[in-house]
Amino acid sequence: MRVIVFGADGYLGWPTSLHLSARGHDVIAADNLIRRRWDVLCGTESLVPIASMKRRVERWKALTGREIKWEKLDLTSLADTTALITQYQLEAVVHFAEQRSAPYSMISAQHAVETQVNNVVGTLNLLFALRESAPDCHLVKLGTMGEYGTPNIDIEEGFIDIEHNGRKDRLPFPKQPGSFYHLSKVHDSHNIMFTCRVWGIRATDLNQGVVYGTGIPETDMHGQLRTRFDYDDIWGTVLNRFCSQAAIGYPLTVYGEGGQTRGFLDIRDTVRCVELAMLNAPERGEFRVFNQFTEQFSVRELAERIKAARAHHGLETSIEHLPNPRTELEAHYYNAKHQHLLDLGLVPHKLEDSLIDRVIGLVERYKKRIRPELFVPRVDWRRGGTGDFGKPSARRRRVAVAPGIR
Amino acid sequence: MRVIVFGADGYLGWPTSLHLSARGHDVIAADNLIRRRWDVLCGTESLVPIASMKRRVERWKALTGREIKWEKLDLTSLADTTALITQYQLEAVVHFAEQRSAPYSMISAQHAVETQVNNVVGTLNLLFALRESAPDCHLVKLGTMGEYGTPNIDIEEGFIDIEHNGRKDRLPFPKQPGSFYHLSKVHDSHNIMFTCRVWGIRATDLNQGVVYGTGIPETDMHGQLRTRFDYDDIWGTVLNRFCSQAAIGYPLTVYGEGGQTRGFLDIRDTVRCVELAMLNAPERGEFRVFNQFTEQFSVRELAERIKAARAHHGLETSIEHLPNPRTELEAHYYNAKHQHLLDLGLVPHKLEDSLIDRVIGLVERYKKRIRPELFVPRVDWRRGGTGDFGKPSARRRRVAVAPGIR
Repeated sequence: MRVIVFGADGYLGWPTSLHLSARGHDVIAADNLIRRRWDVLCGTESLVPIASMKRRVERWKALTGREIKWEKLDLTSLADTTALITQYQLEAVVHFAEQRSAPYSMISAQHAVETQVNNVVGTLNLLFALRESAPDCHLVKLGTMGEYGTPNIDIEEGFIDIEHNGRKDRLPFPKQPGSFYHLSKVHDSHNIMFTCRVWGIRATDLNQGVVYGTGIPETDMHGQLRTRFDYDDIWGTVLNRFCSQAAIGYPLTVYGEGGQTRGFLDIRDTVRCVELAMLNAPERGEFRVFNQFTEQFSVRELAERIKAARAHHGLETSIEHLPNPRTELEAHYYNAKHQHLLDLGLVPHKLEDSLIDRVIGLVERYKKRIRPELFVPRVDWRRGGTGDFGKPSARRRRVAVAPGIR
Repeated sequence: MRVIVFGADGYLGWPTSLHLSARGHDVIAADNLIRRRWDVLCGTESLVPIASMKRRVERWKALTGREIKWEKLDLTSLADTTALITQYQLEAVVHFAEQRSAPYSMISAQHAVETQVNNVVGTLNLLFALRESAPDCHLVKLGTMGEYGTPNIDIEEGFIDIEHNGRKDRLPFPKQPGSFYHLSKVHDSHNIMFTCRVWGIRATDLNQGVVYGTGIPETDMHGQLRTRFDYDDIWGTVLNRFCSQAAIGYPLTVYGEGGQTRGFLDIRDTVRCVELAMLNAPERGEFRVFNQFTEQFSVRELAERIKAARAHHGLETSIEHLPNPRTELEAHYYNAKHQHLLDLGLVPHKLEDSLIDRVIGLVERYKKRIRPELFVPRVDWRRGGTGDFGKPSARRRRVAVAPGIR
């Protein structure tokens, strides 16, 4: 299939581009590269040095003979987006191209507005471009399990059958997102659902859980094919951060009680889920929601799993509870369905000690690059960010580039 | 109480400002005046000539001795919004300041983006300004009944008790909005609900039905106090448009079958509902939703009501069914609750022949200003707008100003 991956420079967008290319799909990788600028603004940096998109696609071609076309593009430009969609005969577009950090969205009013405008406008432009130029093309959109929040009932996949006062309907599952970022994904979901109904767009909304892991077999083929790995307070997801802390003997920092339960998945399953969704397109006008995760854990359970994996090697790991910077329940019911992708053939990589060892192994290789001050949460959900986010002094901080990588 | 009315230049914002001022509240009227620019861009015009905000508040002072402070302000400026909120010791803010036309939002990608960015960013800025400078202030926000769509179950006021697989929760009522405008209000609702939870904002979301009527007693006091009256395809609401058509002997144009059922209310009840919400503030952290309408009708029923009212005067009115430019069910279940405002003391003005006569009477006074071509819908939900919306030629069209009014 011919597919554009939007957000192809990101932690998941790049492995997805490689995975799809390796399986014979004709991949166009698009990104505005803003994620690298956000790193500079936040004083953060991928632990694993990453090559430029140009180097990456050249290296991929040299190693495999397969071509990934690289296109620098900002989805917030309607003209550029429409031109790109019009240029190719597309069967699918995969849309990762959003600001995807909850803490980033909570730093300040400007960051909240930037997140919602970037995400909502990019998705609106893509929907209009599809209507104009590729009405049969399947939109595979990355949502988040965080759209649902933590209701006291089972979480269904996008829709719920409600019986009320003797009448019935199948309605969108109520959303209780927990940050301006998560809210932006809820806005997107409503916008996409509407365009499926009025324009006949075909779309799959992948409500993804928290992803962990360092890469996929294709990113391991060469240093220039690696994807980014974030361990900091803004961009790092919890399991990757815990592994980084363990690698340097730092305590695992749990926010609050740690009873917060979420869905998780291995990055190798992310790329497979996207492919499965893409290979099994919905009908014209259908808005389909898959909950994309494989297991659920509480944050405390995750910390214990890592502690136990380290103990198998005779290493001791401490767990520290920090005041929770977020506003969220720390003990709650959580049971989220995730059957649709299994029905399409997903065989999950469950969390195992060997994976934890592998992540920690990679971190150890780059442990000199770890800055432990970045483990400390700088953004409070009640007060916003502290420190110098977005100030000129922060902008001037330059990311150290590993020699020979870019 | 001291209150800012945002969107005070609009059809409802201006009467609300007068109503609150007349009842002894200390009113600051804020607006960016963009509604008048949108008229120029759309080639539309208020049937009733309206004075400038400066003239309006001067006239109000001259007639009543009461002062309404006029502030030109754009909510999409965070700095200006924060400065204004900081300047006054506020007990409430009433927020009408949004692009409020569904057809306008469906003209093109640019109009969809403009609508969602304007509405979402304005509301986000207001929420951040309240958090910073007036955390006790009550936000009274205008939503729309159109957020709910037309589910096959009773529509509750914002929240619904759901029992599912043996467990229960009270969750946000699922939303199925029918245009990019209605979607923007859903986005706002989610954003506001979140800030109530994490920052303790106190908010009332007034999910309003379709408003009809020419004004309130205070707007009738002087020609310079009148509020706008829209009869066109972009800004006109259905009952006002039907009355305008009847006044010049034009057929009442029903979109499709006319079985579309919605909640309606008299403009005199709008101002009273806002006051009742304001006088009865929720607790800090509470997000409260009132469905603000008094009766429900199908579009066909409304047309029949007007036809019957005209027949009482021996006048014949024809009803014409146009192809529906919108994507909506034309026959559906509809039963929406609207108890909360009645419990607070609302005594509804139900739709009567005398009101219809009054609206038609006003239209007849200005019938020479009616341009019947503006009755014809120019925006199709599937294809967008036809014609020259937003083109320089349309921009050059100037609104005729009645002498002595501005």
